[in-house]
Amino acid sequence: MNDSLSPCSLKPAIAEVAAAVEKMLSHLLPQAEGPEHRVLEAMRYTTLAGGKRLRPFLVVQSADLFGVSRISSMRVAAAVECVHTYSLVHDDLPCMDDDALRRGNPTVHVKYDEATAVLAGDALLTLAFEILAAAETHPDPKVRCALIALLSRSAGVHGMVGGQMIDMAAPDAEHDIQSITRLQQMKTGALISCSAEAGAVLGRAGADKRLALRAYSHDLGLAFQIADDLLDADGTQAEMGKAVGKDAALGKATFVSILGKERARTQATMLASQARQHLDLFGAEADLLRALSDFVVSRRN
Amino acid sequence: MNDSLSPCSLKPAIAEVAAAVEKMLSHLLPQAEGPEHRVLEAMRYTTLAGGKRLRPFLVVQSADLFGVSRISSMRVAAAVECVHTYSLVHDDLPCMDDDALRRGNPTVHVKYDEATAVLAGDALLTLAFEILAAAETHPDPKVRCALIALLSRSAGVHGMVGGQMIDMAAPDAEHDIQSITRLQQMKTGALISCSAEAGAVLGRAGADKRLALRAYSHDLGLAFQIADDLLDADGTQAEMGKAVGKDAALGKATFVSILGKERARTQATMLASQARQHLDLFGAEADLLRALSDFVVSRRN
Repeated sequence: MNDSLSPCSLKPAIAEVAAAVEKMLSHLLPQAEGPEHRVLEAMRYTTLAGGKRLRPFLVVQSADLFGVSRISSMRVAAAVECVHTYSLVHDDLPCMDDDALRRGNPTVHVKYDEATAVLAGDALLTLAFEILAAAETHPDPKVRCALIALLSRSAGVHGMVGGQMIDMAAPDAEHDIQSITRLQQMKTGALISCSAEAGAVLGRAGADKRLALRAYSHDLGLAFQIADDLLDADGTQAEMGKAVGKDAALGKATFVSILGKERARTQATMLASQARQHLDLFGAEADLLRALSDFVVSRRN
Repeated sequence: MNDSLSPCSLKPAIAEVAAAVEKMLSHLLPQAEGPEHRVLEAMRYTTLAGGKRLRPFLVVQSADLFGVSRISSMRVAAAVECVHTYSLVHDDLPCMDDDALRRGNPTVHVKYDEATAVLAGDALLTLAFEILAAAETHPDPKVRCALIALLSRSAGVHGMVGGQMIDMAAPDAEHDIQSITRLQQMKTGALISCSAEAGAVLGRAGADKRLALRAYSHDLGLAFQIADDLLDADGTQAEMGKAVGKDAALGKATFVSILGKERARTQATMLASQARQHLDLFGAEADLLRALSDFVVSRRN
């Protein structure tokens, strides 16, 4: 097992998946035509605006471990990215986090209007399930249903939506490390875990490998979120492509506000290393996933 | 074929399905627990508030034509009703139609807040697909995938969401009868058609019967919408459980504003009769669906 895969190999691999998923998304998103063109334009505007494409990378790399065809894994990656993008569009709304900038561009409600932002998010979420239900995604309908069950559980009220609710309902709450961890596992962790697990579902992996990928991405997701909180505290708007320092200004509880920067940094590094250990039952073909665990805690945006 | 089934048989049948789907929804909607309880409460508040349950009735009656088990059809009916309810919650938002009253109760953003209303809608839409993907809904995963494909197409950007976008983007547009028909077929017709067609999918019906149910519900949906416009023009708030006369006050194009009341009434009656004719290849077991076509144009709320 090669633990020291250089970032030189990871970055082109991430860029390759990002380019491929962008192409797939452009193919799957309807063209902006007809009297409803405004919402179609908004969907394309926000989904095809780049981004790290971390979740697609996880889907594709996990699926690669089981020799899944790239058409299958790219379609699932695109579906997961639709869900991620919808969540950003709704979270940015004035009634939620009220953000004007996302991925370096005006948010959808700023560029279009609030109604269009609500509808574009709704349509992206719906499209994700339409993509997964189609026979092109996997020839076995049982696999497609398993993917839909996994994605809906991860995105729903006991996952992403529930996490956002906790975040909205108690922004100034006296969060401790347990409650902030649960919040983040739901809000961002659930969809990240779902991404790696989806690769295992596509590959009809045994329970041990599916659980290993779930555990890996669980730790990876938390490490990612702590790094995000550190970047929000330290990064610049130019680096991040969105407003920074907002959490502190709002008095919001984050891993950094609870643990302090140093302990947060240590915790992220520890989680990244723990994530790697869950990959021990895979060989060298999991090296990119191993390298990713280091990357998420060392990234600058 | 018995064309003259009395409304005395229809109303208890509608009430029976409404009660059964309410019970199923109460079972499928998670209990309001944990720090995310606010969104769970809002989901239950808005979904378990009664309503005509027209879509569940269509699912169940169509499925009955093919001897589908009531557990299957009730789960699908509940999923469709989750999608219908989510669309009402989002459409009522201040940035959309800005309605304070729905089914006689305060709308979700009035009772809770806007963020909770957005999230409750998102969670209901997601839950609908989780319900359909589960093995309890139908033993054959191919049928479950077909249901998910049908529902996502009907609810998405080329169906319900697209219709709402057209309605929002051009409330004062110079709609003619063609454009208002297309708008309404997308906005309300798509999910109504989906409901009857879902029964055929559950029953693995042949193409002729599936198409007949689609054609029936297509005409039924338009008749229903014209009746709705007439009620908005003539009904009282007490009868309707929501604000009335709003379309006219906003100068919005409706079937009534374009056709006038008398022609609109004639058109609705014609469509209802056309809907019945599509059921000719079914026997007496479709009598409730036949009676429904009369009911939707004669209803007072």
